[in-house]
Amino acid sequence: MTDYEIFELGDVVLQSKKTLRGAKLAYKTYGALNAKKDNAIVYPTWYSGQHYENEWLIGEGMALDPRKYFVIVPNMFGNGLSTSPSNAPEPYNQARFPNVTAYDNVRQQYRLVTEKFGIESLELVTGWSMGALQTYHWGALYPDMVKRILPFAGSAKCSRHNFVFLEGVKAALTADAAFQDGWYRSPPTKGLRAMARVYAGWGFSQAFYREELDIKAMGYASLEDFLVGFWEGIFLPRDANNLLTMLWTWQNGDISNNEVFNGDFPKALAAIKSKAFIMPSKTDLYFPPEDNAFEVAHMPNAELRVIDSIWGHFAGGPGTSPADVKTLDAALRELLAS
Amino acid sequence: MTDYEIFELGDVVLQSKKTLRGAKLAYKTYGALNAKKDNAIVYPTWYSGQHYENEWLIGEGMALDPRKYFVIVPNMFGNGLSTSPSNAPEPYNQARFPNVTAYDNVRQQYRLVTEKFGIESLELVTGWSMGALQTYHWGALYPDMVKRILPFAGSAKCSRHNFVFLEGVKAALTADAAFQDGWYRSPPTKGLRAMARVYAGWGFSQAFYREELDIKAMGYASLEDFLVGFWEGIFLPRDANNLLTMLWTWQNGDISNNEVFNGDFPKALAAIKSKAFIMPSKTDLYFPPEDNAFEVAHMPNAELRVIDSIWGHFAGGPGTSPADVKTLDAALRELLAS
Repeated sequence: MTDYEIFELGDVVLQSKKTLRGAKLAYKTYGALNAKKDNAIVYPTWYSGQHYENEWLIGEGMALDPRKYFVIVPNMFGNGLSTSPSNAPEPYNQARFPNVTAYDNVRQQYRLVTEKFGIESLELVTGWSMGALQTYHWGALYPDMVKRILPFAGSAKCSRHNFVFLEGVKAALTADAAFQDGWYRSPPTKGLRAMARVYAGWGFSQAFYREELDIKAMGYASLEDFLVGFWEGIFLPRDANNLLTMLWTWQNGDISNNEVFNGDFPKALAAIKSKAFIMPSKTDLYFPPEDNAFEVAHMPNAELRVIDSIWGHFAGGPGTSPADVKTLDAALRELLAS
Repeated sequence: MTDYEIFELGDVVLQSKKTLRGAKLAYKTYGALNAKKDNAIVYPTWYSGQHYENEWLIGEGMALDPRKYFVIVPNMFGNGLSTSPSNAPEPYNQARFPNVTAYDNVRQQYRLVTEKFGIESLELVTGWSMGALQTYHWGALYPDMVKRILPFAGSAKCSRHNFVFLEGVKAALTADAAFQDGWYRSPPTKGLRAMARVYAGWGFSQAFYREELDIKAMGYASLEDFLVGFWEGIFLPRDANNLLTMLWTWQNGDISNNEVFNGDFPKALAAIKSKAFIMPSKTDLYFPPEDNAFEVAHMPNAELRVIDSIWGHFAGGPGTSPADVKTLDAALRELLAS
């Protein structure tokens, strides 16, 4: 009883020169591919998110309207549905799961799109946060295939500050002795809860907390209720090794760190020919607009559109802030019409 | 062989209605009190800091010149020199150490200033971060005694976002099983290192890391060298219960949360008659200038002077950023001359 499909990838050699044998790409599609196969959109998942957690931006009457478009949501490796530490067979399971890059992810997503569906052109690639990281990869790696991109609250390369923020998240999770270097038999709940508390200060802005939007907009009874109910609630059900796998993917995100661009970041940005709206949140504490401004200056066809929101990183998703959803939806509509 | 003095406080009843028996206030003075006793400055310590870590702002030729002023640096309760979990006798030692407020601290500092030295007027109270919190308390509680205050990179009340940031720090430290609910016999080093990594993303700004000032200005060889050498180096030598005691003091900082103001924060701000320069750092991630702007709007004699720096919270101290030290020193000079 699953609501998603599996694309069998076979044996996948990763950038790390390790092999995921019998790798699987879990995905879900919305709408129908037309006869000309020219109405497809790819919309990758975010850190820890699964395909259904992308659905807030898909719907009849919205820009990503399944009556018009064929929306493919591929699940990231490590997210628990595609091949992950929690579901990989021995010997590459749990703590032995290999490092996977965003490049590795997008290369396999490309296979899904082309081999499974025979699609040669994409109307749009879009995504939030790590979904944005994958979006940039699509633009840089397949410039003749991708007509438009709209990465939001993300970046083409993990900044040093963003890396440090994630070091704190990782340290909190792994400080729990129950983590047992990744060989736990039951979840390291203390570490997962600690990680959630560390994340809480980063996810929303100073102004969000000052205005008490956790209570007044999201309906929690108190700050502590928000920390437990929302934040610990996000991370407790997820697998610790999966979270660490995706965290590594995030920290090492860089569209130029591959055989195509050999670390030349400006060159990789310049390769993104797609028409692009780059949409950071003005108050995002780990994806500040300044990093995107650098990107846009090196991209031939990109426009910086800062979301004027106090919801911090969560201006971008996952549907938490209704006003920001409208802003994103309107931008997607405008971009798709162009 | 200590470089500080002890003022015996006797039995101190705290706001929490617990009694610190035989409490001690460790302090150090710089310069000499003049005959009229009208050249004194109080300069409280910051989170985890001890008196010698305040000395970067004191010196001949600087605004806080010991040839002219008598500078008193009182150590905060919980900092390991004044009465703290690490040095308190049973039964209030270690994990049983009571909660101490900034109000508790400043009330005892007042006793040191008046009972020990017979001082009736202070030229200035100043401090960084939690030192700023204590500075605001001095202004609100002793308005006829304090001529001037200059709190920098701090606030009169812990904001909700700041509280959440500290929840992350606390959760990382206490996730370590070696912490043993505060009854450790050897330090919970994994938790202390995790706490340091969490703190690292908060202490300096996104721009600081983007510009690689950890390497280019502070001389570390790499980002990881900075995380270990600077950040883990700060917290590893400090006692975990002490850190948690001061963290509680910080999280519960509020100049109005006492019998004088009964929780009326605007009223407490309005009580600060001292001429005040309020100096946040423009890029401070947990003491953003917006919170200080609210304060200044309610203070009768205060001016907001934002430090234009990318050093984040560390624009304020402890002497890490030479340009910002000059800015602070010049402001102190101007305020003292007025």
